[in-house]
Amino acid sequence: MGFAPLQNDRLIKALLRQPTDTTPVWIMRQAGRYLPEYREIRQQAGSFLDLCKNPDLACEVTLQPLLRFDLDAAILFSDILTIPDAMGLGLYFSEGEGPKFERPLRNQSDIDKLFVPDPSESLRYVTDAVSLIRRELNGKVPLIGFSGSPWTLATYMVEGGSSKDYRYVKGMLYDNPQALHKILDTVAQSVVTYLNAQIEAGAQAVMIFDTWGGVLTPETYHRFSLDYMQQIVSQLKRNHDGETIPVTLFTKGGAQWIEATADTGCDAIGLDWTINIDEARRRVGHKVALQGNLDPCTLYASPDTITDAVKKIMTDFGDHNGHVFNLGHGIHPSVNPDHLAVVVDSVHKFGREIRATDQS
Amino acid sequence: MGFAPLQNDRLIKALLRQPTDTTPVWIMRQAGRYLPEYREIRQQAGSFLDLCKNPDLACEVTLQPLLRFDLDAAILFSDILTIPDAMGLGLYFSEGEGPKFERPLRNQSDIDKLFVPDPSESLRYVTDAVSLIRRELNGKVPLIGFSGSPWTLATYMVEGGSSKDYRYVKGMLYDNPQALHKILDTVAQSVVTYLNAQIEAGAQAVMIFDTWGGVLTPETYHRFSLDYMQQIVSQLKRNHDGETIPVTLFTKGGAQWIEATADTGCDAIGLDWTINIDEARRRVGHKVALQGNLDPCTLYASPDTITDAVKKIMTDFGDHNGHVFNLGHGIHPSVNPDHLAVVVDSVHKFGREIRATDQS
Repeated sequence: MGFAPLQNDRLIKALLRQPTDTTPVWIMRQAGRYLPEYREIRQQAGSFLDLCKNPDLACEVTLQPLLRFDLDAAILFSDILTIPDAMGLGLYFSEGEGPKFERPLRNQSDIDKLFVPDPSESLRYVTDAVSLIRRELNGKVPLIGFSGSPWTLATYMVEGGSSKDYRYVKGMLYDNPQALHKILDTVAQSVVTYLNAQIEAGAQAVMIFDTWGGVLTPETYHRFSLDYMQQIVSQLKRNHDGETIPVTLFTKGGAQWIEATADTGCDAIGLDWTINIDEARRRVGHKVALQGNLDPCTLYASPDTITDAVKKIMTDFGDHNGHVFNLGHGIHPSVNPDHLAVVVDSVHKFGREIRATDQS
Repeated sequence: MGFAPLQNDRLIKALLRQPTDTTPVWIMRQAGRYLPEYREIRQQAGSFLDLCKNPDLACEVTLQPLLRFDLDAAILFSDILTIPDAMGLGLYFSEGEGPKFERPLRNQSDIDKLFVPDPSESLRYVTDAVSLIRRELNGKVPLIGFSGSPWTLATYMVEGGSSKDYRYVKGMLYDNPQALHKILDTVAQSVVTYLNAQIEAGAQAVMIFDTWGGVLTPETYHRFSLDYMQQIVSQLKRNHDGETIPVTLFTKGGAQWIEATADTGCDAIGLDWTINIDEARRRVGHKVALQGNLDPCTLYASPDTITDAVKKIMTDFGDHNGHVFNLGHGIHPSVNPDHLAVVVDSVHKFGREIRATDQS
């Protein structure tokens, strides 16, 4: 490939629980609607999906937040629903209602037709974007690739869009679990192929977003979400081009189950804001790194309040290896971008202070 | 008052962790849209709010599920937002969008104008309904009264309706906590007055619904939700008319914090479906009774699957005093009512079996 050597390796080191000079920070949805320059490109592109499918524009918006903030990683601009779209379900976005599928999975014959998409064909726009971003980054910071989790993708594929009560997918889970396992199995194989293609194209770390794992019971979470994420973790290319590729799992609403998540073989767990990071650390020990976990709504507060909230999380985590600062979920579209600068700069400042105190 | 003596006291006994012949069961939103007879009365009444404010019709729909199912309690048909409506915020329901307020709280002068409504005036329709239902029940089963929690009511009062990101109320929480405490303090006093009025009117148990406590961080949950529920618990009439009035607290998404909830002095904790009831029991010991916790989506499955799921929860809880069977949240409008009959009958059957096994 001949990509430029990585200059800022804080993220990779922290995900692998190695020492760093300060705490790395990146932000979920850091390329997004809260940035006026993003909104401009989004308008040019046409639809949200047009933007995802245009590697040049996807690259441009991926890099935008790095021009404003001292972030320690870039994350591919894309959508979690690219895989079911490549399976032919017909993804579209209706204004104000979020993602929808033209052909949701409602019967066995739909399910039998599911296949593992070839990333070099129908998902080529993603791997092209990854390679382009990696080249443009020129080694400045690492590039994170990602996918939705099988369970989370299945909720959209069966419901046909967002859901309040998960009627169809949970109905299937309870009444026809074989059918759901068939979907999850095909999706899990697709995620493996897709993430490995992102790694080969240049992604230096990968993350799996289990946005809807938290709507399950403990038992069904294990069987219908975590087991499939574990299968994926075990089949990813964890070494590529001489580098280790760390894997992060994030289940929103999954704080109760982090011990089991830590046992999957992943390198790091993403935390939402409903758990204290010191408690999370006690519960998983040094088995994995932790990523998180500022309440995204904190960014509606004043800079002083934001600084205090950042400091609290970092103090709670303490002077250990293996913390990547992030919000507990994506940044909200109506946040003032200057408030994100406060987060990023505070993380780096306190990260240095915590380490200096320890050495004195 | 001269109400008829209570014939079926399973619910009250279980909430107080006393022995019962079998496990009592009632269902959140048991009077609701899944019942055709409810939909008929709802149509007659006009709007949802018209139905809540008409004691005769509220009584009729409260009693409907008892005619169909062998339930161990009635719960007042009402809405959690009656208190802010009585404070003059102008509650209305827009089709498909849920509750809204005409005059949400956005500035200090709105907040300064808040007052504790007199339940004998602007909430008279509620206490009238309570007394009427209690008379009509004629001692068959106990009547549960309820209120929203201060935090949950405050989210609607500040946002002006449902919210995806809780922008305004969390902005206030982080940036102007004094203003939010002022709201919560007035609402908490109002809930005390309101629930005590329901108890005086005939409610034999009360429950506080903290629907949105789970969107908080552990620290802010304690300071902005649980502390106010604890204040309320300590000021309720726990003895009335020679009977003990049990108090149940339910925070959706609050399974992580049940130890602290058990320390409030409440009699029982409502559990959503994200925690195993055996784990919950271990964590709170015998300090409180537990109510729950079947995933409401289980009711989309077949009768056999439903029966197995009921049995699992009851087996997990084991042969101890202090379990009230319920769903982990309200019953979904599209559920087949016959499936609820399966739940109710299975609970009573297994409850007897578990107790019989122990005595053999």
